[in-house]
This record gives sequence, C-alpha cells and structure tokens, in this order.
Amino acid sequence: MTDINRRNVVKLALLAPFVASMAGTAFAQTPASMPEHKMPDMGPEMNKVHWLGDEQIGMLMYPGMTVMDLIGPQCMFGSMMGAKIHLVAKSLDPVTSDAGVTIVPTATFESCPRDLTVLFAPGGTDGTLAAAADPATLAFMSDRGARAKYITSVCSGSLILGAAGLLKGYKATSHWSVRDVLAGFGAIPTEARVVRDRNRVTGAGVTAGLDFGLSMVAELRDQTYAECCQLVSEYDPDPPFNAGSLKTAPKGVKDAMVLLLADFVKKAKVLASATTV
Amino acid sequence: MTDINRRNVVKLALLAPFVASMAGTAFAQTPASMPEHKMPDMGPEMNKVHWLGDEQIGMLMYPGMTVMDLIGPQCMFGSMMGAKIHLVAKSLDPVTSDAGVTIVPTATFESCPRDLTVLFAPGGTDGTLAAAADPATLAFMSDRGARAKYITSVCSGSLILGAAGLLKGYKATSHWSVRDVLAGFGAIPTEARVVRDRNRVTGAGVTAGLDFGLSMVAELRDQTYAECCQLVSEYDPDPPFNAGSLKTAPKGVKDAMVLLLADFVKKAKVLASATTV
Repeated sequence: MTDINRRNVVKLALLAPFVASMAGTAFAQTPASMPEHKMPDMGPEMNKVHWLGDEQIGMLMYPGMTVMDLIGPQCMFGSMMGAKIHLVAKSLDPVTSDAGVTIVPTATFESCPRDLTVLFAPGGTDGTLAAAADPATLAFMSDRGARAKYITSVCSGSLILGAAGLLKGYKATSHWSVRDVLAGFGAIPTEARVVRDRNRVTGAGVTAGLDFGLSMVAELRDQTYAECCQLVSEYDPDPPFNAGSLKTAPKGVKDAMVLLLADFVKKAKVLASATTV
Repeated sequence: MTDINRRNVVKLALLAPFVASMAGTAFAQTPASMPEHKMPDMGPEMNKVHWLGDEQIGMLMYPGMTVMDLIGPQCMFGSMMGAKIHLVAKSLDPVTSDAGVTIVPTATFESCPRDLTVLFAPGGTDGTLAAAADPATLAFMSDRGARAKYITSVCSGSLILGAAGLLKGYKATSHWSVRDVLAGFGAIPTEARVVRDRNRVTGAGVTAGLDFGLSMVAELRDQTYAECCQLVSEYDPDPPFNAGSLKTAPKGVKDAMVLLLADFVKKAKVLASATTV
C-alpha cells in the first residue's frame, strides 16, 4: 500500500457519497460539476480497477413511487465516480413518494440526455399503474429505451417497462405480487432476485434494489469496484426475521399480504390486458 | 381467512407505502391526513396484531447525509399505519444528500413535535461531522432526546448522537470505519448489525438501516407486523458478492477502503476529542 499524502489525494473522490470528504470539493452534491480525479497508487491489482467512468444513468420518478425502489440502486450507482445520475420526472416539481418522501428531480423528460447508459424505473402501487398508463411517461421510456445500453427496473417498476413495450420476449421479474402479470406484456416471468436477459435487468421487490444495484456496478465497472461499494455501504445483511419471501413467511403473514395486495394485482392485470405491445 | 368484500376494505390502508392503493385515499402521500382505518377479519392470530399506532417519528436531515441511511429505516417505519414520520431539518429548504438526492423536509427543529416516539439520525461523512458540530442541530437532538422513547441512528449518525451527549454509558455501533470513535463520546463501541442498550438503538453502516428498521417495527408493534413489512418489501437479501464487512471483503478491497476513509476517521476522532459530554 502506497503512502498517501494530502497533496495527491486532494482531488480524489472515490465512492462518491461516503468518502466525498476526501475530495475536498462539493462534488458529490453536485454531480454535474465533477472535479478532476486522481487515484492513488493502490498496488498492481487495485490499479486495474475501472475507477472512472462516464455513465449516464436516468432514473424515472413519479408521484406514488416507492422511494426505497429508487434509493437502493441509487445507493450503489451514486458511488460510481464520473457517472451522472439524472432523477427524471415530467417536470422539475418535487415528486412525492407513496410514503410521503418528497424528492426534487434533476431533469425532465425533455432535458434528460437522449442517450442513456442505464434507464431505470422504480415501482409502487397505484402511482406505478398511473405512470404505466400515462402517455408522456410511456413515450419517454420508449424513446430512451430505444437507445439505452441497459433497460432496468426494481419491484413493480417492470410494469412500466412492460407497458412501454420494453420487455416483449425478455425474461423479467417484479414484486412477487405482480411477477406473473408481466406475461401480459409479452415478457417471460422469471423467479430470481435479479434477472438479466441480454440488456434487460430487472430486480424483485423493493429491497432487491440493493442486489440489483451491486450487480449493475459490477457490470458497468468491475467486480472489485462493486465489492468496494458493498463494503462502504456495509451491505452484510442480517434480517432479524425470516419472512422476506413467499417461501419463508409464516402462512398468516403471507395470506394477509396476498389479501391486501389483491386489489393492486387485479388493477395490474387490467393494465396488462389493455396494453398492446 | 375471511372473505373480504369491497365494502369492508374500502378504508383499509395497511402497510401504507406499498398497498396505499387499497385505501382509496391519498393517505400515504399525506401522512398528516390519516383516513379512518378498518382492518378486515384475518383470523384469530392476525387479529391480535397491533395494526394501528400513533408513533411520532422524527428523522433528522442535514446537507451531506447519506440518503440510504434515511430511506432504509423509512422504508420500514413508513409501513406503520397511523405512525407519523417527520423529516426534520433546520429549515424547510430542500436538503441535498452526499450523492445528490434532494429531499424536502416536512418539519423544522421548531415545528417538530416535542415528544417523539423515535428520534433518528442518519450518517454520512463531512456533512455528518458538520451536523455533529452544529450548535442548533445538537440543541435539537439533545432537547428531543431528553424525552424521546427511543434514541436511534444508522451508520455514522451515531456520531451525532454521541456529540449531543446521548450515548454516554451506552453500548452503540456505527459505520465500521468510525465505530471505535464512539468511545470518545463515552459510549461502548459494540460490534453488531443492530445494537440495542435500553432505549438506544443504533445500526451499523448504511444498508443496516433495513435490519434496524425491521427491529424497530417489531419493537413498536409486534413481530408479525414486522414480518408483514419484510414480505411486502421483499427483504430476502441475496448480495451478488460477499464483501459487505471487514471480515469478508478481499484484502485489496478492505485496504483500499480503509485508506480512502482515513481522512474521515481522523476528522471524526478530532470531533470526539473536542466534545465534552
């Protein structure tokens, strides 16, 4: 390990969010104004890592989205030095999530770069169905999706991809409650935490965004970079209970949640049957 | 399982964010305007669950916070029917996280309820150190902490608790990089994903907020409610790599991240040594 002195790390901003302090700049808060980067010598193996990139990541936002669907992946994407994350909405008006977190967009459907490395859609319930039936949203997804290197989603965000005609003939997943509904959009529902089929990468429900995000960082940079993100975000999960899937949840819990999501599932099926892709 | 018809679920809003669609209201987007709730009959065991509550949850926000530290717990807290979540900042001006996500506060230090069920602090790096040295922030944390039922944090947010004198004599954890620094605030650094000592509950780095949040839901309601949150958020983690802790990360990854966080750790130690609690 090479000695690092103040002079040669002053412009360093690795793993932006957590170690922004090292950059000596406000870089992480203003992704648009990237400072010059200079990595320290970390030895032959680490020096091979693709620390710097120029990915353009477009993350859709809409009223009623589940904010954790957005922030799980953003937690990992946000650590990629040089990448630009665009939080894209219909207008620059703040967008309120299903649980009342209001986030300010950084781009509109018009101002979002035309050529994205990653196009991403978060999920939710009623808000997601509304977004998946909104012509302007579908036009944006369809347009950027035609050129994006990766077309991605977490949770029921895959319903939006499906409604935009972006999953036809592709394996994909979703929140467990609506995974099978994807067949209505011509997709092939597939059970896994993260499903990749060519350049479509979809995550399962809500918290799967962390697993999805790490997979994407490894794909966009390399596994070592993703491992750095994992260590810095201390992603060493240890759920206090074992009820995170239909296979492990107690029967009462499962039955109750299936019951309570039944109306959403019904509406999602109506959406799929009304979609011609 | 009892049959549920449209009439008796029309006012139901369980697990607010994800199944808000069932409420037939905009409840989840406007936590202040809770509709009347009516749970369906779900059988003897499930009917015992404490579905409704009136917790007041104050979540601190400040410039440079790590947004995932906030949203992990919020993902779980936000599912508690009847609970009110206050996103509290110095003013109502939008607050920008270390990775450029800007969130609108819902309360100020003045307007936040005086008596909180849960007082929570997220972490970060430079922004966290600034918040932990800011007299107004410390006065707010100290005042609400004097009466809060639970005093909590995730990641380096425990540095703020420590600086506010809220961890003296308590076992606590933090992000791995600064866990030992907590001793400087009179705390007892303790290695675990979630550490509870009496009414202090602290989580480890960033993504530990999910484990922390689930534990808190179980504490505030019951385990079954927490299991419902876990199933709805599909928290069945499956990290693609095994590098989430100092014990599992490859040596090169660990050495690089320790190196890159060294300046932050040094500054955190200076903060602790300057704090008289």
